Amino acid sequence: MGFFSKDIKSLDDLFVHTLRDIYYAEKQISGALPKMIDKATSPALKQGFEKHLRETEGHIKRVEEVFDLHGVKAKAVNCPAIDGILEEADEITGDIDDKQVMDAALIAAAQAVEHYEITRYGTLIAWAKELGRSDCAAVLKKNLDEEKVTDKKLTDMAESRINLQAAE
Amino acid sequence: MGFFSKDIKSLDDLFVHTLRDIYYAEKQISGALPKMIDKATSPALKQGFEKHLRETEGHIKRVEEVFDLHGVKAKAVNCPAIDGILEEADEITGDIDDKQVMDAALIAAAQAVEHYEITRYGTLIAWAKELGRSDCAAVLKKNLDEEKVTDKKLTDMAESRINLQAAE
Repeated sequence: MGFFSKDIKSLDDLFVHTLRDIYYAEKQISGALPKMIDKATSPALKQGFEKHLRETEGHIKRVEEVFDLHGVKAKAVNCPAIDGILEEADEITGDIDDKQVMDAALIAAAQAVEHYEITRYGTLIAWAKELGRSDCAAVLKKNLDEEKVTDKKLTDMAESRINLQAAE
Repeated sequence: MGFFSKDIKSLDDLFVHTLRDIYYAEKQISGALPKMIDKATSPALKQGFEKHLRETEGHIKRVEEVFDLHGVKAKAVNCPAIDGILEEADEITGDIDDKQVMDAALIAAAQAVEHYEITRYGTLIAWAKELGRSDCAAVLKKNLDEEKVTDKKLTDMAESRINLQAAE
C-alpha cells in the first residue's frame, strides 16, 4: 500500500487490507517454523512447533474461507510487522550457540509472533462484527483461540524450561 | 547484532540484549506517539495517546533503572520488530482520509505496539526471575502492568468507537 494514496476509504477496506496482512503473516510464519523446529533442542518445544506448523496451515485455510465469505479474492499484502518480528528472531538465534539459551530465545520469538497474531485477529473480529459479518468473525475466532492456547503453552514452557531440560 | 557471531553465550547475555531491544522500542514508540496524537480524531483517543506518551517516558526511565540495577550500561540495539510494526502503522494511516476509519486504524496499530511490549516484558520478567534478579523483575512488572491497562483501554475504545463518535 502507500503507492496509490488514500486507498482505504471505509472500514470494509480496512478490514480487507488487514485480512490480507494476516494472510501474508500466516504464510511467512508457516515458512519460518521449519527453521525454528530445526533449531529447537527440547523435544517438547520441537513438538510444540511441529503442532503449531500444522495449525498454521489450517489458519491459512480459514483466512481463505473468510476472504470467500466476504466475497473478495484471497490475496496477501506485504506486512512489515511480521517481517520485522521474524527478522529479529532470525538475527538473535543466529547469535546463540548454547542449547538452553537457544530454546529460551526461540520461545520468546514464538511468543512475539503469537502476540502479533492475537492482536490482529482481535482487531479483525471486532471489525467483522461492526460490519455485520458475524460469519467471518466466527471463523477468525477459531484462529484467535488457537493462537491464545499456543501462547499459553509457550509461557508454561518458558516457566518450566529448566525442569524440562533437567528431565531430558 | 549478527556481525560479531555467537555474541549471546548465556541467559544473562540474552536478558541484556532483550533489555536493549525494549529500550530501543520504547524510544521509537515515544517518537511515534506524537504523530498518532496528531492523526487521532476522537478526543478520548487523543487523550489516551497523550497519557500513554507520558507513561512511555516513564517506561524508558524504568528500563534505565533496570540496566543500572543489573550493572550494565543503558544502550539500545536495533529492533526490527518494532520498526516493522511502526512502519506498518505509518503506511496504513497514510492511506486513510476518513476520520472514523483513521481512528479504527490507529487503535489497531497501537494495540499491535502494546502486544509487542507485553510479550517482551513478560519474557524479560521470566528471565530476570530465572537469573535471581527479582529486583529487576519488579521494576519491569510496573511497565508490563501499564501496557496491559493501555491495551485493555484500547480494546474498550475499539468496541465503543461508534458510540464515542456519535457522542461528539
